[in-house]
Amino acid sequence: MLNFIEKALSFADAATNVTMQQHKVDREERAAILGKHAGYRGCTIWFTGLSGAGKTTISFALEKTLIQLGLPAYGLDGDNVRHGLCKNLGFSKHERTENIRRVAEVSKLFADMGIISLASFISPYRSDREEARRIHEEANIKFFEIYVDTPLEVCESRDPKNLYKKARAGEVKSFTGIDSAYEEPTNADLVLKAAFETEAECVQRVLQLLYEKQILPEQTMHDLCGSPVRQLFVPESEKTALLQVAAKEPEVELTTVDLQWLQVLAEGWATPLTGFMRERQYLQSLHYAQIFDLKKKCTLPGQEDAVEDPALVDNYPFYDNSISQSIPIVLPITDEVKEQLKVVNGSVGSAVSPDLVKRVKLTYNGQVVAIVEDPEVHPHRKKERVNRQFATSDVRHPTVRMIMESGDWLLGGDVKVLGKIKFNDGLDEYRLTPVELRKIFTEAKCDAVFAFQLRNPVHNGHALLMRDTREKLLKQYKNPMLLLHPLGGWTKDDDVPLPTRIEQHKAVMAEGILDPKWTVLAIFPSPMLYAGPTEVQWHARARLAAGVNTYIVGRDPAGIQDPDTGDFLYDPTHGAKVLTMTPGLPNLEIIPFRVAAYDKTTNSMAYFDEKRKDDFIFISGTKMRGFARDGVEPPQGFMAPKAWDVLSSYYRNKALQAAEAK
Amino acid sequence: MLNFIEKALSFADAATNVTMQQHKVDREERAAILGKHAGYRGCTIWFTGLSGAGKTTISFALEKTLIQLGLPAYGLDGDNVRHGLCKNLGFSKHERTENIRRVAEVSKLFADMGIISLASFISPYRSDREEARRIHEEANIKFFEIYVDTPLEVCESRDPKNLYKKARAGEVKSFTGIDSAYEEPTNADLVLKAAFETEAECVQRVLQLLYEKQILPEQTMHDLCGSPVRQLFVPESEKTALLQVAAKEPEVELTTVDLQWLQVLAEGWATPLTGFMRERQYLQSLHYAQIFDLKKKCTLPGQEDAVEDPALVDNYPFYDNSISQSIPIVLPITDEVKEQLKVVNGSVGSAVSPDLVKRVKLTYNGQVVAIVEDPEVHPHRKKERVNRQFATSDVRHPTVRMIMESGDWLLGGDVKVLGKIKFNDGLDEYRLTPVELRKIFTEAKCDAVFAFQLRNPVHNGHALLMRDTREKLLKQYKNPMLLLHPLGGWTKDDDVPLPTRIEQHKAVMAEGILDPKWTVLAIFPSPMLYAGPTEVQWHARARLAAGVNTYIVGRDPAGIQDPDTGDFLYDPTHGAKVLTMTPGLPNLEIIPFRVAAYDKTTNSMAYFDEKRKDDFIFISGTKMRGFARDGVEPPQGFMAPKAWDVLSSYYRNKALQAAEAK
Repeated sequence: MLNFIEKALSFADAATNVTMQQHKVDREERAAILGKHAGYRGCTIWFTGLSGAGKTTISFALEKTLIQLGLPAYGLDGDNVRHGLCKNLGFSKHERTENIRRVAEVSKLFADMGIISLASFISPYRSDREEARRIHEEANIKFFEIYVDTPLEVCESRDPKNLYKKARAGEVKSFTGIDSAYEEPTNADLVLKAAFETEAECVQRVLQLLYEKQILPEQTMHDLCGSPVRQLFVPESEKTALLQVAAKEPEVELTTVDLQWLQVLAEGWATPLTGFMRERQYLQSLHYAQIFDLKKKCTLPGQEDAVEDPALVDNYPFYDNSISQSIPIVLPITDEVKEQLKVVNGSVGSAVSPDLVKRVKLTYNGQVVAIVEDPEVHPHRKKERVNRQFATSDVRHPTVRMIMESGDWLLGGDVKVLGKIKFNDGLDEYRLTPVELRKIFTEAKCDAVFAFQLRNPVHNGHALLMRDTREKLLKQYKNPMLLLHPLGGWTKDDDVPLPTRIEQHKAVMAEGILDPKWTVLAIFPSPMLYAGPTEVQWHARARLAAGVNTYIVGRDPAGIQDPDTGDFLYDPTHGAKVLTMTPGLPNLEIIPFRVAAYDKTTNSMAYFDEKRKDDFIFISGTKMRGFARDGVEPPQGFMAPKAWDVLSSYYRNKALQAAEAK
Repeated sequence: MLNFIEKALSFADAATNVTMQQHKVDREERAAILGKHAGYRGCTIWFTGLSGAGKTTISFALEKTLIQLGLPAYGLDGDNVRHGLCKNLGFSKHERTENIRRVAEVSKLFADMGIISLASFISPYRSDREEARRIHEEANIKFFEIYVDTPLEVCESRDPKNLYKKARAGEVKSFTGIDSAYEEPTNADLVLKAAFETEAECVQRVLQLLYEKQILPEQTMHDLCGSPVRQLFVPESEKTALLQVAAKEPEVELTTVDLQWLQVLAEGWATPLTGFMRERQYLQSLHYAQIFDLKKKCTLPGQEDAVEDPALVDNYPFYDNSISQSIPIVLPITDEVKEQLKVVNGSVGSAVSPDLVKRVKLTYNGQVVAIVEDPEVHPHRKKERVNRQFATSDVRHPTVRMIMESGDWLLGGDVKVLGKIKFNDGLDEYRLTPVELRKIFTEAKCDAVFAFQLRNPVHNGHALLMRDTREKLLKQYKNPMLLLHPLGGWTKDDDVPLPTRIEQHKAVMAEGILDPKWTVLAIFPSPMLYAGPTEVQWHARARLAAGVNTYIVGRDPAGIQDPDTGDFLYDPTHGAKVLTMTPGLPNLEIIPFRVAAYDKTTNSMAYFDEKRKDDFIFISGTKMRGFARDGVEPPQGFMAPKAWDVLSSYYRNKALQAAEAK
């Protein structure tokens, strides 16, 4: 949060020629954001304190930060008032009172308009400040008094306008703190010790106050602190009761892929989804690659529109009115299972599918892992789905085949997951949730996270790209970190299996090709789909949950061969092209994957240079696997030796097993 | 425009208990819109005039209208100033001057914040108003003086606060117009004769001024006047030059379906598209069913982002940042044609595809009908396209077959069309453009248009629905009109052909089943696609261009049979469901199609009633065609007799011709 504020302020300083009393935003900047967030939040924040205490500095820094957050704010201070509205007033006690009264009236009008009005005035007399508060409260407008408590000595030593010196010399009369009283606030809403806190820290404390007083919307706190993650785990204390109430409800056994999707949902990678998709969200995803709302019913024109549970959305806002969700996350069930979910003996069904039971237990290997509440069963039009999602219905595509072989119905509903999903394969420690990852990044004081999605071994060309990305980010950030994030769910048979990949990645890190100081190795629990441009959006969007703000995209991401031609099934440029235009995917910088090849002149992996193309050797995945299988060493510098050993021993063993099997 | 303003005001009156000096908007309403349109437009509009002239009435009505348009505005008037900021001032000349000075200073601060500040004060002295202007202009803020010129007699007869009476009786002193001077403005920016103009007319005139002074963005004028239509016709005066410059450029011959799409584009049904889609818009349409921008290049991450020509978007804004476009509008070309578009002898190519000619002539029957400028050729991945667009690649689907048989490349680019596209089939008079249709509706003082998309004969059940829709709209509007809008482009062979349908529709109108006073019969030039839920979005969205604000949607819209099962290819409810959630389709009310059947108890078409289902006969299209072919009269009341004659004679002739052919 401090980081955000500091950045906001540093941009301001860079952008304008800041002098002491100038706003840090100009009209254009203020106007550009006016009302990003609907809702009345007019109020007055009244900064009081000695001359030179830092009132206007903090007020204008706060103004800048609020504007950056998309909240309308306006700083009123001596300069824009004493030279205008109150230019006919001096500094006698009576005139000071009238000055404050006028300012309070103006501030009230601003607040009435919906502006967060920031008034910074010495306002030395308690009675004047009380009057200012009264004027606001009479109009039912919130008024916060903030005491900028900077000791006189500090103010005097700063003396930005050379006024203390003049007052001490008697050249300026009735100067507060010298020959005119300052009555300290006795019950200010906030006291800022501006002599001991930085500008950004002061701003942060005011923002916290505004958040507590419900002036700042949730969303802006997310902007400050990172967007929220909706986990679907049941609190420990509620488990027993939940299991009890669901005791007699029917069970649905999950496949391993279903369980992987459940993990994706449970850990919040698909925030703000509350469970497997209902028909409404399924159609939104299939037709628009986005989710617009979390309403439960799919309505027809003329029907009463579905109502949204505010609890489902208030804390999980949709960016730009939608969030990218190009992949339906659904739970297929068969006709037989569907029949079992029907109510027997008049038990009360849900609003969505009135003839269904109220809850369904999801099991894996017979163990209950989650409960679906308010379930909905909707048609799984499989051929339509695969055509829209994969642009093919050819069952030689392994995911298409899996879907075409699944049930004809989809079970949607809100999911409550009974505990962290584990696979007991020795890799669970790498299955870090978005919340766990965020914690790691926060503790490491990381200010930018770049993700590398992968399902292949890392060679030195990849590492080069990742190191370069970090160098690039270091120009903007202090501690950018890499989330090395191999996909850990189902993959097709000829992909390198997860345990081998993890060993290989660990070896790459152990050899220092990727520095463990700025690299976090974790497993992305999603199954693979091989849906090309449609899937890459999911891969990018899911990582937002872990705090990722930079995503590296390659050629033909999530692609697969056309089974007829052996050529790319998807245009290899479309993934990256589509990703640059994806709606509902905010604040994510997309970095291109630059192609690296083996440079014979340097015996290392380097970015391919068309001009001297004969210097390069391309080592494809197929070639690499061939080397590994045949015990051939790849050229020196292609891959860290220990990492190569992991790979070659996997392929040697595989070949051995195959030979034994014959 | 007046209509909008009147509505805005009437809502206000209904919503709040309006008294003379109360704002017509409250804080919540104002805050909800704050900054819908980015951009600084702070200024002060200064209303001057006698007490009772209507200053505050107009100012607050203007405030309400501006807020409705999404512009931040705040009305300052005597009430919220004389009781607050200036409560310590009386009505002497000196105090009046100080009052105006303070108000001007406050108004300046509001304007500085980005608010359209509406100050309504008698402000009787020219010098005070000049000072107010000076205060603003010194701060580089626009100031508009508006004289609310209501004669003293009128003000005195209104006397809303009973002040004139008191002034005449000497109970109130220094009352402007009675015993204190009012100095009329000599060069006001606008003079409102509020005694002779309605409140809405006065507001309209101020809005017009604000628009001319570039305070109101284009978009708000569109909101007031209906959104713009981008036609792609070349002005007559530029034709010769255009043909000359393209004289030596290659030609591409269009199919009839291509020509129909060209007509769709030329007349603005797909506003704001500038021609056949480039790859960028094609991918947006295919993946998201929307258009987000009109940039020409499809960029990859790390490439310089494509620049948008402001002329392409400024007047054709995207609603909600996008506009619905579920159907790619593209021009397929073959390999051979693509080869011909390559530059020979180093002629300069376009920025998008540098190896292409700068222009391409489009011909139909050998005649040049349009020029493509800055052409781009991109791959037509046909199988991917049909799978995403139709959710099938089965060539028994007639449109899928047509696409699969078309060229492997798409020719995108900006299209300049040489003249209205005609088919010389006796029906061109019904091919009304969106602009022509809007003119008809405007001249008929129509305030709501509801569209009925059809490609079948109209029976009395349809007519019942349309009449009912009009009745429903009459509760809200004065003159709702029906756009009876048969699709006129390509349809599959077994659909009733267009000329027969038009004759049938004319007969329905001639018999008064649909009242010609409120029915406009016109042809929608689009070809049919049979793409179900994907296509219905196009059918609805295209009609926006003609000013339609209500769209009737039925069961299985744009559907077709599954060639294997004979069942619906698309879930018959999905079209309507998806349409209620379509992004980028604003201000369109979706009305459900209620199913009508023949009611034996009344011998008429009536809405089907499940409770007495045995009273109804369903007459399907197949059954109807069978009656017509066999010369069987349908039950009385099913269809207007003359309309039935059109249909039955078509089918009899068809049968006759088939028999003769044998």
